[in-house]
Amino acid sequence: MVPVSVEIPLQERSYFIDIGSQLLDALGAHPALPKGTSALIVSNETVAPLYADRLLAALKHKYGIVHIVVLPDGEEHKNWQTLQKIFDVLLENGADRKTVLFALGGGVIGDMTGFAAASYMRGVPFVQVPTTLLAQVDSSVGGKTAINHPLGKNMIGAFYQPQLVVCDLDTLDTLPQRELAAGIGEIIKYGPIYDMEFFSWLETNMDALLRRDRAALAHAVKRSCEIKAWVVGQDEREAGLRAILNFGHTFGHAIEAGMGYGTWLHGEGVAAGMVMAGELSRRLGMVDAAFVERLRALIVRAGLPVRGPRIDEADNAGRYLQLMRVDKKSEAGEIRFVLIDGPGKAVVKPAPDALVREVIDACCA
Amino acid sequence: MVPVSVEIPLQERSYFIDIGSQLLDALGAHPALPKGTSALIVSNETVAPLYADRLLAALKHKYGIVHIVVLPDGEEHKNWQTLQKIFDVLLENGADRKTVLFALGGGVIGDMTGFAAASYMRGVPFVQVPTTLLAQVDSSVGGKTAINHPLGKNMIGAFYQPQLVVCDLDTLDTLPQRELAAGIGEIIKYGPIYDMEFFSWLETNMDALLRRDRAALAHAVKRSCEIKAWVVGQDEREAGLRAILNFGHTFGHAIEAGMGYGTWLHGEGVAAGMVMAGELSRRLGMVDAAFVERLRALIVRAGLPVRGPRIDEADNAGRYLQLMRVDKKSEAGEIRFVLIDGPGKAVVKPAPDALVREVIDACCA
Repeated sequence: MVPVSVEIPLQERSYFIDIGSQLLDALGAHPALPKGTSALIVSNETVAPLYADRLLAALKHKYGIVHIVVLPDGEEHKNWQTLQKIFDVLLENGADRKTVLFALGGGVIGDMTGFAAASYMRGVPFVQVPTTLLAQVDSSVGGKTAINHPLGKNMIGAFYQPQLVVCDLDTLDTLPQRELAAGIGEIIKYGPIYDMEFFSWLETNMDALLRRDRAALAHAVKRSCEIKAWVVGQDEREAGLRAILNFGHTFGHAIEAGMGYGTWLHGEGVAAGMVMAGELSRRLGMVDAAFVERLRALIVRAGLPVRGPRIDEADNAGRYLQLMRVDKKSEAGEIRFVLIDGPGKAVVKPAPDALVREVIDACCA
Repeated sequence: MVPVSVEIPLQERSYFIDIGSQLLDALGAHPALPKGTSALIVSNETVAPLYADRLLAALKHKYGIVHIVVLPDGEEHKNWQTLQKIFDVLLENGADRKTVLFALGGGVIGDMTGFAAASYMRGVPFVQVPTTLLAQVDSSVGGKTAINHPLGKNMIGAFYQPQLVVCDLDTLDTLPQRELAAGIGEIIKYGPIYDMEFFSWLETNMDALLRRDRAALAHAVKRSCEIKAWVVGQDEREAGLRAILNFGHTFGHAIEAGMGYGTWLHGEGVAAGMVMAGELSRRLGMVDAAFVERLRALIVRAGLPVRGPRIDEADNAGRYLQLMRVDKKSEAGEIRFVLIDGPGKAVVKPAPDALVREVIDACCA
């Protein structure tokens, strides 16, 4: 298949996302690859054995010196200790400001590599090679990089743009089905908040996506990146509009934090969170029951959870509220929900605690 | 005295540096203070007992909630563990994106608070209240924030601008003489690289500076900030010209690292480093011996070292070279020296190792 390109227009920080097959081995010849004196591939224990040698071989043509650092796999390792390993390897190898970092893996690798690139010597170039569907549709666009803090997810980070993103759909062949589904959760999001035509396309093509049909994946990744790029282009620093991309995330982050990071996948939390945010929108009179049911049905077809877990036996709703109040999007303790104001349109606003409690009670296992 | 203001013009990141007496207690009413839901004062064990309560009282008028975090004092604490304490306090107090950070202290506090502000939730506003001369003339301008890594100084950080800098010259009354002198070292720098008229002014006014005459201090801080602002305005991200601000720093960083951070003050390393860089310029035929002698004499009058320490008994010059090669300014292992190409004009270029060795041998104790 012919690769497609999505341009992320951010003035002097603009870059391209390439989406297609057989891109990994050809990466060394990519015209948009940043110049540099050396390169460091950052990957994890799961992805490195599958693809790191191939990426290294591809980059050897471009950069004389290419090192690899292999981090432990999982959200629970997205912390300072793991980040420090990247800095250690960079400094031990005498990396300078012309060293290019390559993130080879999922969202955790992308977030940590991006933050390392933003911070090492106050900024070196980096390239993303996302190998999960979630990372291809989500971390590719927006320049958000971060690590977790024991008291909150993604609390420490930077807005920092890659110079190039290459989504090789072939790397999704090795992705476990559960993670593929989690990525589809993040894709479904774009329907309710922006594009119900894309939502209909997903209803028609869900089976093709689940069997990893290249053309279906390419369209889903491309359309998701396009929508996200449009939103981020309006609001790079997340002052307003960009918050709509967090549909399902307010509840989802509470699920992830409440269960302990890594227990639920990010896309799974978002999936159940979208149903909860949809249900909250319905109870506020903004959408009808049929819309919430249609959303729920598509999430079920993707094999994703539509009910939140109980995260506190004594006061489940209270614990959700507590966790949502420390979310980065809350302001002075007021939770700002992304709600659906008619299918295809999102708004960000607070909601009465009592109503949120009702939704949590109704939507949790 | 009437405070003076220097504008740092960086488009939407522009801000003012106020310089004068009796500014601390009036800070809460400053019109350029960022809006916010709460504030956190970051200070250290030395400065907090002197000024933190006064700053807190001043800010209470503006922000309802004001917390203080007191860090250990010293360059050796400019690391992740100390930075983490700032994040801990922010998260324990439910700080959000509208929380304003105040750096109350010297360069270490400014660098760490700035990096914390850059990274916390990917960026919150911050204000600098520098209480050392070095911080007032150096950290106030340029947006460089960072922490050290065991393998190198300032290796992890961000370019991040404050929203306001307030230099209360009265706070310099509590500064030890050695630290005052170190700040003067950084001020002297602006003569050779940019403004020999200012250098002459320093020769005339050195005694006034050393006895902390307010008017002399105000002029020295203002002129240093103006020159630095002009240079940074040309080159915010340190792509080229800005490197001239590192006159004396290449050797100076090697001294600091070689002796162990905190043994020599930054300004002391820069002072001896300026003599070494001046001597290297002379041996390259760019300045005459009279200029180097004039520079040396002024540094002596400030009470600063003009000779570097021995940092390795076996191969002192080799160790200097090794440390300079891992400096952030080096590229692919090539050390880029800031040299004086005639008094008042700096250039950045490499120099033959053999010549650098000669200079180190001639200039070390």
